[in-house]
Amino acid sequence: MPGQIYAVELKTKDYLPQDELRAIQLFRRAANYMAAAMIFLKDNVLLEKELSKDDIKYRLLGHWGTCPGLSMVYAHVNRIIRKTGLDSLYVVGPGHGAPAILACLWLEDSLSTYMPEYTQDREGFAKLLTRFSVPGGFPSHVNAQVPGTIHEGGELGYALSVSFGAVMDNPDLVVTCVVGDGEAETGPTATSWHGHKYIDPAESGAVLPILHVNGFKISERTIFGCMDDKEITELFTGYGYQVRIVADLADIDNDLAASMEIQQAARSGQSIVKPRWPMIVLRTPKGWTGPKEMHGELIEGSFHSHQVPLPNAKTDPEELSSLKHWLLSYKAHELFTKEGGPVKEILSVVPTDPHKKLGQRKEAINGYVPVKTPDWKQQAVGKGSQESCMKAVGRFLRETIKENPHTFRIFSPDELVSNKLDAVFDVTGRDFQWDIASRGQGGRVIEILSEHICQGMLQGYTLTGRTGLFPSYEAFLGIIHTMMVQYAKFTKMAVETKWREPHGSLNYIETSTWARQEHNGFSHQNPSFIGAILNLKPKLARVYLPPDANCFLSTVAHCLRAKNYVNLMVGSKQPTPVWLSPEEADQHCIAGASVWKFASVDDGVNPDVVLVGIGVEVTFEVIAAAALLRKHAPELRVRVVNVTDLMILANTGFHPHALSEEAFNTLFTADKPIHFNYHGYPVELKGLLFGRRGLLERVTMEGYNEEGTTTSPFDMMICNNTDRFSVAVHALIAGATVNHRVAPYSHAKSTYLDHLKQKEKCYIMKHGKDHDDMFDTPTFD
Amino acid sequence: MPGQIYAVELKTKDYLPQDELRAIQLFRRAANYMAAAMIFLKDNVLLEKELSKDDIKYRLLGHWGTCPGLSMVYAHVNRIIRKTGLDSLYVVGPGHGAPAILACLWLEDSLSTYMPEYTQDREGFAKLLTRFSVPGGFPSHVNAQVPGTIHEGGELGYALSVSFGAVMDNPDLVVTCVVGDGEAETGPTATSWHGHKYIDPAESGAVLPILHVNGFKISERTIFGCMDDKEITELFTGYGYQVRIVADLADIDNDLAASMEIQQAARSGQSIVKPRWPMIVLRTPKGWTGPKEMHGELIEGSFHSHQVPLPNAKTDPEELSSLKHWLLSYKAHELFTKEGGPVKEILSVVPTDPHKKLGQRKEAINGYVPVKTPDWKQQAVGKGSQESCMKAVGRFLRETIKENPHTFRIFSPDELVSNKLDAVFDVTGRDFQWDIASRGQGGRVIEILSEHICQGMLQGYTLTGRTGLFPSYEAFLGIIHTMMVQYAKFTKMAVETKWREPHGSLNYIETSTWARQEHNGFSHQNPSFIGAILNLKPKLARVYLPPDANCFLSTVAHCLRAKNYVNLMVGSKQPTPVWLSPEEADQHCIAGASVWKFASVDDGVNPDVVLVGIGVEVTFEVIAAAALLRKHAPELRVRVVNVTDLMILANTGFHPHALSEEAFNTLFTADKPIHFNYHGYPVELKGLLFGRRGLLERVTMEGYNEEGTTTSPFDMMICNNTDRFSVAVHALIAGATVNHRVAPYSHAKSTYLDHLKQKEKCYIMKHGKDHDDMFDTPTFD
Repeated sequence: MPGQIYAVELKTKDYLPQDELRAIQLFRRAANYMAAAMIFLKDNVLLEKELSKDDIKYRLLGHWGTCPGLSMVYAHVNRIIRKTGLDSLYVVGPGHGAPAILACLWLEDSLSTYMPEYTQDREGFAKLLTRFSVPGGFPSHVNAQVPGTIHEGGELGYALSVSFGAVMDNPDLVVTCVVGDGEAETGPTATSWHGHKYIDPAESGAVLPILHVNGFKISERTIFGCMDDKEITELFTGYGYQVRIVADLADIDNDLAASMEIQQAARSGQSIVKPRWPMIVLRTPKGWTGPKEMHGELIEGSFHSHQVPLPNAKTDPEELSSLKHWLLSYKAHELFTKEGGPVKEILSVVPTDPHKKLGQRKEAINGYVPVKTPDWKQQAVGKGSQESCMKAVGRFLRETIKENPHTFRIFSPDELVSNKLDAVFDVTGRDFQWDIASRGQGGRVIEILSEHICQGMLQGYTLTGRTGLFPSYEAFLGIIHTMMVQYAKFTKMAVETKWREPHGSLNYIETSTWARQEHNGFSHQNPSFIGAILNLKPKLARVYLPPDANCFLSTVAHCLRAKNYVNLMVGSKQPTPVWLSPEEADQHCIAGASVWKFASVDDGVNPDVVLVGIGVEVTFEVIAAAALLRKHAPELRVRVVNVTDLMILANTGFHPHALSEEAFNTLFTADKPIHFNYHGYPVELKGLLFGRRGLLERVTMEGYNEEGTTTSPFDMMICNNTDRFSVAVHALIAGATVNHRVAPYSHAKSTYLDHLKQKEKCYIMKHGKDHDDMFDTPTFD
Repeated sequence: MPGQIYAVELKTKDYLPQDELRAIQLFRRAANYMAAAMIFLKDNVLLEKELSKDDIKYRLLGHWGTCPGLSMVYAHVNRIIRKTGLDSLYVVGPGHGAPAILACLWLEDSLSTYMPEYTQDREGFAKLLTRFSVPGGFPSHVNAQVPGTIHEGGELGYALSVSFGAVMDNPDLVVTCVVGDGEAETGPTATSWHGHKYIDPAESGAVLPILHVNGFKISERTIFGCMDDKEITELFTGYGYQVRIVADLADIDNDLAASMEIQQAARSGQSIVKPRWPMIVLRTPKGWTGPKEMHGELIEGSFHSHQVPLPNAKTDPEELSSLKHWLLSYKAHELFTKEGGPVKEILSVVPTDPHKKLGQRKEAINGYVPVKTPDWKQQAVGKGSQESCMKAVGRFLRETIKENPHTFRIFSPDELVSNKLDAVFDVTGRDFQWDIASRGQGGRVIEILSEHICQGMLQGYTLTGRTGLFPSYEAFLGIIHTMMVQYAKFTKMAVETKWREPHGSLNYIETSTWARQEHNGFSHQNPSFIGAILNLKPKLARVYLPPDANCFLSTVAHCLRAKNYVNLMVGSKQPTPVWLSPEEADQHCIAGASVWKFASVDDGVNPDVVLVGIGVEVTFEVIAAAALLRKHAPELRVRVVNVTDLMILANTGFHPHALSEEAFNTLFTADKPIHFNYHGYPVELKGLLFGRRGLLERVTMEGYNEEGTTTSPFDMMICNNTDRFSVAVHALIAGATVNHRVAPYSHAKSTYLDHLKQKEKCYIMKHGKDHDDMFDTPTFD
């Protein structure tokens, strides 16, 4: 039988001096009162007259169940800040507990700094309570409109990884992070407990995770609520923590206060092997201090208090009466002065320095440190050579790390070397801290095979003012699709919230794309993350597909400097031709798209047909198709265009980068056939181009079409119809409609080209080899 | 200090009789030889002549590092099946280890059953080895083309949850599941360890998880590789397992054989409180038995053997020589007969009954049990009444559960009651097994706050022949976006693989949609999963937005019976008007879309303008707009169309359901303006409609536009321009272009309607109430 392990035991009796204990308890009572009143009352917010149904809001929103726990932790963090000057942020997984957080922010007077109407007086008090969860007021959920917030908990699972990201390179910061026992069931949380293994105490702060076990989700018990202390202690000891279980309801404030102290004791600032960071398991009844029962059902301590207990308080006199007794139980007259502010004792646990208050931390509001981007042209490569875009970017990132030793990090799911960005390891390492052989010290690279942790840490790092980069295999970035969308929603609200200053962009590089995942097969072929970005608000969304190494360098340098966007860069890690000189690349990237004269007939003047490449390999095929056509159909006047900034295609006015009708027609002609050879799903182009006048009838397109297996790179092109022969056939058929010299024999030529394609296909099946010149620059003669 | 817990200790010395031990070791050697040879050789596969560079493949693919562990487990499972008649499937997380799996399948002669060319002789042997990872041959990855497979490991994290799904309602089945220590870092895996808490041994089989710790990912150590035995034991004991660590390399076969026996000992078939299921931690060097070192670098036991060790064997004589010695070390002549089959001793561990062989299990290939769908009309509601689509569906699911007590399950992330499907609890419970208070016995509902586990279990359950349903809040289904895509890729290949019979569809219900997540706010508003389905191969993809309860019932009944699709159904849980009688609903759903005469002017004959609703709430607004227009602009001839099957809109030929041009024009007219009021992102409609001739110039559309907060339902419509006033304004402006009687004053009318919209908006901001008649059926007079 297994032997037992034990949670940390502490002497907690009389841990707090009487005055501190009382202050904490008053703070909690005040916050609980406000949270409850906020959910229910649209008037009579201090119960100064008899509670009537007319005082009750029309719609009752906000989740009561988690509130008492959230404000308890808030009170204790405040006490420690006040006493020790601790620098702390508070990350709340259960975002539906907004009433608790808003109450605490008002109690510490952090609301009125940003929204002057929420003063610490009767008027501000009433405004906050009555405007909660009504249109135009605070939403029912912690979001970017709430001061001090760097995480919106709506989609559960990410509070912990965000917290770890926030403390990186903030050596004095301790993030207190509450994880609900619902959230703890999610995969992203389950693996994020390992996050401390990526925190080097010499350069970063610490996270104090508090698992709040109140036992219930919306309507069912939680897994953690069914685990006993022994199981929970075993589990988190296995994760590497020192576990402290706080469950003594009768003396919980002493218990929690003593427990939080062990966090500080653990912080030596020294890098040690297998340090035992503390974590706290807080067991309290769901909806603690709320109504005990109603209509014969338990409320407190059951799922009935998850959301709004007494949901019929406006119409059911029994519930109204219960609400009255519940609210009166907090004795508001002991908590608020006549003027409507919190009583002095409550204020005695609030930090005196406003910058130390949880709601007014610089990191969360205006902490942005611009990244110093080195001159990318130092890493540029000669036109006409072959280079891996990623190798070039790796060198640029190496320089970026040198110039930004404490404000730039790379978060990568174990693929940095595979993705050929490993030049960064010339100047830094992997920040993995666990055993003796793995003691990254100051490493700028977080490599963990969890896209969720990478994304969470990137968010926490970015939203506290620094800059990060998330390179990934293209197929697997979609794993964090919804996390990215949630982040973009947060950013949209942050931008609309005037007191928040801009922060860095979320920067993604997708490489190891479907076009070169012929060896790993079908499961590794999925460009759908582009579509995820296209669904964001246009003002936030940027998608780039730089066609060569110089363009990629220019794009990365731009993205790292940009603010408040979600930047997606898609490119190749294999050596591919460098089409443009550094100067040309710069101009091309600024324009977003250009005619590539060198690949066009007569520099692209007066074309019969326009061939457009968007993406590295598919552009290569367009250029090869143009060469084929010069040979097989010299009468056809071909213009080759490359698009590097996808958004220029959007219908005019739909996106800040969208080309005007005039600019669009200058580039693509006003009336000639256009064939797009696109890296992503064709449907994305359809969505972008829709609405551009007179375009529909003259456009054809091919792109990734969910076809692939383990095969050769050129066969990947063939089976998705993005190969040179397919492009040439499209060009011939379309060109014939406008060029009478091509028309008579376009059919024969296209049959011939189709025949060549079939021959290639047979060759590939038989020999299993790449098409010889897949990435040799074709000669243009 | 914590006390210690210990892993299980066993007497393992001489556990296996000598002949069994030798047979196991020969099986392993043969599989390892074949896996290595498969990666490298295109000729001379038995090394019967001197190995030369010409024997080496042009491209070396497949991951060697994980292969020896995978075939070791395969050998041991085979031995147990042979000896005890165990029913087992083998789920392999490290899918890149295909060479090992293919080798074992050939050794047990399961390939030739489906692909007669892979016989157990010299010819079949050579074909398998030389065709691996070349175009037209087996891909480098385990996928649907590999017999016995129900899981493709390309995107890591799901092997364990798929395994738990597979054993549900298969009481005699034990799934052996290997999880790599890379995969173990993912969030989905980290939470899936709790999966055993949802297995009732009275009705389901068991999973034997084997965590294969070989210490390295592509280029870095793993988290689990850095954890010592104590930490790993603590962690998995905390998850509820009995942990057995197998790490004695010198005697590993006795060790593993003894350890696997504890699995069988643990299975009493009784439902007990906190049963301790066993799990095995298998510690072996990465690429064990491979080359020890090359060019001064360690290969075996390091990340250098993760993929192809000796990657330059074709060009580097030193590597070629090392390869030769490596391959010779297995002594192939002791493993294969002159005829080319495995020697008798190897066959002595292979199951004799073909149906028991891991590669020929019925569950994985042809185990589909059609679901008995009850008559949905029994649950239908009266036309003209109000009903929640989900309440009606809940009643239908209740009957479905009654008629399919062992072949139908619901996988839900803790929202079944919130999603109003709780009628199912009349006849079943939640299948949660942990402590005394949570002992679901035979419950058909899995509720766990992990979309990843729900999806993985659903996949495992479906791919072994049963039928499942995954209801979810709309915003959070995207969490499993890429899992669904991977599954669809698997299904596409399965359909193309003739020997696999069809299986049930993957069925999703999205409810609690953005249109009614006004209370939970912006984070709960995200209809992007529709777009994920639209990117699949059209033959697999189905999206339905049934407009009322009767239509939803008809749709669910259809989807549960359908095979091989991914079905997404989107609807409302709030009471909404029932527009159609059961018979009308059936016809409407068969057609996919119809003119709604009752809401149109003169039954929709000769319209000036066509208004199209797609989705519950937005269709309601279209109908309300039509009523407004009848009042304010009676001259305008309005046709109202509802689309319930989104795919009918696709350009002709693009999807099996796409309307022909003629049918499209009959429904939407050939030349009149059309306004779409759509539940999803408008870009999706653009993608679908693109290419339909002459449509672009006469179409306008609105849909979810990433606008929202905590507000009223009607304000959600207003801020996304899907409200009745916006629809009416669109109709007036467009109608004026075709109806001269409307033209002269359409501008004034639309300004007036815009004014009404602003008034509503102000009202909502001030009063925070829903628009009164948001879901009262408007009167049409």
